[in-house]
Amino acid sequence: MANIRHALNTRRADDFAAWYQEVITAADMAEESGVRGCMVIKPWGYGIWERMQRLLDDRIKATGHDNVYFPLFIPLGNFEREAAHVDGFAKEMAVVTHHRLIADGAGGLKPDPEAKLEEPLIVRPTSETIFGDAMARWIRSWRDLPLKLNQWANVVRWEMRTRMFLRTSEFLWQEGHTAHENEAEAREHTMRMLEVYRAFAEEDLGLPVIAGEKPEHERFPGADATYSIEAMMQDGKALQAGTSHYLGTSFAQAAGIKYQDREGGEQFCHTTSWGVSTRMVGGVIMTHGDDDGLRVPPQVAPWQVVILPMLRDNDGDEAVLAYCRDLAAKLGSQSAFGEPLRVNLDTRPGKAAQKRWDWVRKGAPLIVEIGGRDVENAKISLLRRDALWNTENGKPAFRDPSPDEFAASAGAELEAIQTALFEEARARRDDNITRGLTTFDELRAFYSSKDKYPGWVEMAWARPTGAALDKVVEQLKSLKLTMRNVPLGDEGVSGTCPFTGEPAVERIYIGRAY
Amino acid sequence: MANIRHALNTRRADDFAAWYQEVITAADMAEESGVRGCMVIKPWGYGIWERMQRLLDDRIKATGHDNVYFPLFIPLGNFEREAAHVDGFAKEMAVVTHHRLIADGAGGLKPDPEAKLEEPLIVRPTSETIFGDAMARWIRSWRDLPLKLNQWANVVRWEMRTRMFLRTSEFLWQEGHTAHENEAEAREHTMRMLEVYRAFAEEDLGLPVIAGEKPEHERFPGADATYSIEAMMQDGKALQAGTSHYLGTSFAQAAGIKYQDREGGEQFCHTTSWGVSTRMVGGVIMTHGDDDGLRVPPQVAPWQVVILPMLRDNDGDEAVLAYCRDLAAKLGSQSAFGEPLRVNLDTRPGKAAQKRWDWVRKGAPLIVEIGGRDVENAKISLLRRDALWNTENGKPAFRDPSPDEFAASAGAELEAIQTALFEEARARRDDNITRGLTTFDELRAFYSSKDKYPGWVEMAWARPTGAALDKVVEQLKSLKLTMRNVPLGDEGVSGTCPFTGEPAVERIYIGRAY
Repeated sequence: MANIRHALNTRRADDFAAWYQEVITAADMAEESGVRGCMVIKPWGYGIWERMQRLLDDRIKATGHDNVYFPLFIPLGNFEREAAHVDGFAKEMAVVTHHRLIADGAGGLKPDPEAKLEEPLIVRPTSETIFGDAMARWIRSWRDLPLKLNQWANVVRWEMRTRMFLRTSEFLWQEGHTAHENEAEAREHTMRMLEVYRAFAEEDLGLPVIAGEKPEHERFPGADATYSIEAMMQDGKALQAGTSHYLGTSFAQAAGIKYQDREGGEQFCHTTSWGVSTRMVGGVIMTHGDDDGLRVPPQVAPWQVVILPMLRDNDGDEAVLAYCRDLAAKLGSQSAFGEPLRVNLDTRPGKAAQKRWDWVRKGAPLIVEIGGRDVENAKISLLRRDALWNTENGKPAFRDPSPDEFAASAGAELEAIQTALFEEARARRDDNITRGLTTFDELRAFYSSKDKYPGWVEMAWARPTGAALDKVVEQLKSLKLTMRNVPLGDEGVSGTCPFTGEPAVERIYIGRAY
Repeated sequence: MANIRHALNTRRADDFAAWYQEVITAADMAEESGVRGCMVIKPWGYGIWERMQRLLDDRIKATGHDNVYFPLFIPLGNFEREAAHVDGFAKEMAVVTHHRLIADGAGGLKPDPEAKLEEPLIVRPTSETIFGDAMARWIRSWRDLPLKLNQWANVVRWEMRTRMFLRTSEFLWQEGHTAHENEAEAREHTMRMLEVYRAFAEEDLGLPVIAGEKPEHERFPGADATYSIEAMMQDGKALQAGTSHYLGTSFAQAAGIKYQDREGGEQFCHTTSWGVSTRMVGGVIMTHGDDDGLRVPPQVAPWQVVILPMLRDNDGDEAVLAYCRDLAAKLGSQSAFGEPLRVNLDTRPGKAAQKRWDWVRKGAPLIVEIGGRDVENAKISLLRRDALWNTENGKPAFRDPSPDEFAASAGAELEAIQTALFEEARARRDDNITRGLTTFDELRAFYSSKDKYPGWVEMAWARPTGAALDKVVEQLKSLKLTMRNVPLGDEGVSGTCPFTGEPAVERIYIGRAY
């Protein structure tokens, strides 16, 4: 196999964390803002997020939710009334205490002591409590139920250790909040939204995920049950990529969300909440990136086809440009995934070869180069980002269809790339799940081996609770391991729990995590 | 003319401010949140904003801008370095001083004194200074220019007197920020975005606007020139509906946004910024609303056609529902404005007549009722929201096309409604602009007359500056008047300035304003 000169300096196999940072920089997706813990999301990163928003929003609307917008600020008192929620959240939050600046007498500014708020305001870390206030006002009878709301917003959780897209003090997300008549309906809806997230992750982002229930100690503060989708990154670590919570009646009781039932009695509503954030962008990078940069799944690529004219500052340039424009027009009338192709004819200044590598690092799915010779031969030079190299000669694997051939097949090829990225990720994920360990000693031995990226272990366990669960959490922590989730649709297990020695009742995934 | 029983309690002619509040409540668009100065935007209000976003975003992308996302928090120091900007903005802003809460010892929570920020953070009131920091990092040479960015975000300006959509402490907007090589290009871009706003307001929202330059004292803090689009509300007051600023090099100098020019020299960039906000929703209400509620322009209506089955809880219901579903399917394959029709088959519980009036108050452009008799006659009962009443008998002006006739014409009818709303608003606006006043005494006499909603006055003036301008501002203030803008494309004026006695050089619009 020929020696390939990859487009990044860092190999995934050498230093995954450094590779991740390099991809973000090399693909020009985001950067540190200078504001502690906050990033600037640049056009390519934000364009991917916009596509994610559009696709997930369609799915959320298709399941009967309306979008709304609630205040950024939540009064401190809202956090005081729901004890479990406070314990979980009331730690690291941005607190607004003043509403005016004045001169500090030294040429600068300071908060005006005369403009101190009577009650501090919290920048929302999540909005259950303020949605709860509104639900209490809006819901009168069973006829008002279910109430199904969603909001796209920024939220702030003051993080001490941040990493771009994965953990930032401010991040973007959607948060769904619903109210239902009874437990059965609310639980069913919790599962429906988990399935929406699974389908979004797998079909739109090409991220294979395990949908399942988080163990008790990992529940959302105040929830009766928390479900997640868990994706495996290329370093074998888990990324919790979305969560769906059945909140029981605890938030309804704290906020007074009551309704008159079909028999005329008064009941508390059963509520749910669920969210997916810009963290998903990090998941796409760590799942589909390679040693040449990002590979964006075509469904969420801001540009699916990039056309690069190779100009020579001579008389032939106009013919090349005309040929490119003609190709762009041909492609513009084609579609993939039921939408028109997104095609960028990149005429910015700069050399075509340099620009080719910029787009390789950004991960545009199909890259087309057009020079004078292509025009003469009535061909194009085509690179497919997920099959970039000719492994025999170590050179980029160009193909040379005619413009018409390419236009006719581009939509299908983009759909094939989407599938190929998913299948590649699923095969890798499946290869990195280890089964058959039956004791904690075996687990320790496995994770103490030399394998740098050991992946996950699937074990059968007894679902301990309380102090017994705490003990397991501590044992795992000593190996830097966490419980990910208990997969849905478990077909029954046998054997003995490696932690408690009791009969196992279900499977659980264990691994290192982001 | 028959006596009509309108769907609202308040008439526009009686109490415009109370009418505005009633429309928002009756159309279920928004409500007070309980958080000072912040509102909850409910599904119908947010749906209209989402449509506005989609249409304006398309226009912003079509003019070559990329969307990005910058931090919510801006360090205090950013506001200290640009003196003019500070004077304008550094007054009423939300200041974050702590990043943690702790128990207050009395069962509640308080900001943790141990977690006080070294430098307070400001919740962005606008983002020129933080975009400036990034532009200084990103721009090296003329090849990097123009840099054209846009962001959709929430911003906070601590307002003492708030009114829903028009003036709230937190609001949603887009803010564009661009950097250019020279003054000519930056000024041209400022005007291009003003034209984007004009086209968006007039073509998408049906809001006739005057595009022009704000007088010197109304410039954005730190700007060299500010342009606006001004719309006239039905009470004759002006709403500044969007602004576009040429910022010169002042923000570039404060943030160090420099580039190497084509000759190898170092230059400061010329920057622009421009924004449109949820205030536009208020403008749509006050322009198109009537005594029956809102009328939503079809381009931004979340639902353009609402179908109401009239069910009787008997055997005939299934036939009615099937007929409705059939109609919805027929409409779903039709389009208006180049997009598929947005059709809502409203099967929620409740009486059809009650639901009819809900949708009238919300302003759905076309409302269809289907009962057993319609099914028998192979007809539908159709209400057009902008021609609601039969003025001869005071009853709703139902028409009864067949489903096929309606499906074939619905797209065109929606486009006709869009035009009709615009033309109605333009005629009213034009009728309420008074020309020919030549002295301040005449102006005073005009605005002291009994006319409740006097509209605007267009005068020729000498464009005074400095102290002379201040004097005019004070004179107008005594009549509660403000200068709106100097219209573009002025064909030359004659006469004497009513304020300074000097020869007039241009026209200016004067009026009361939101």
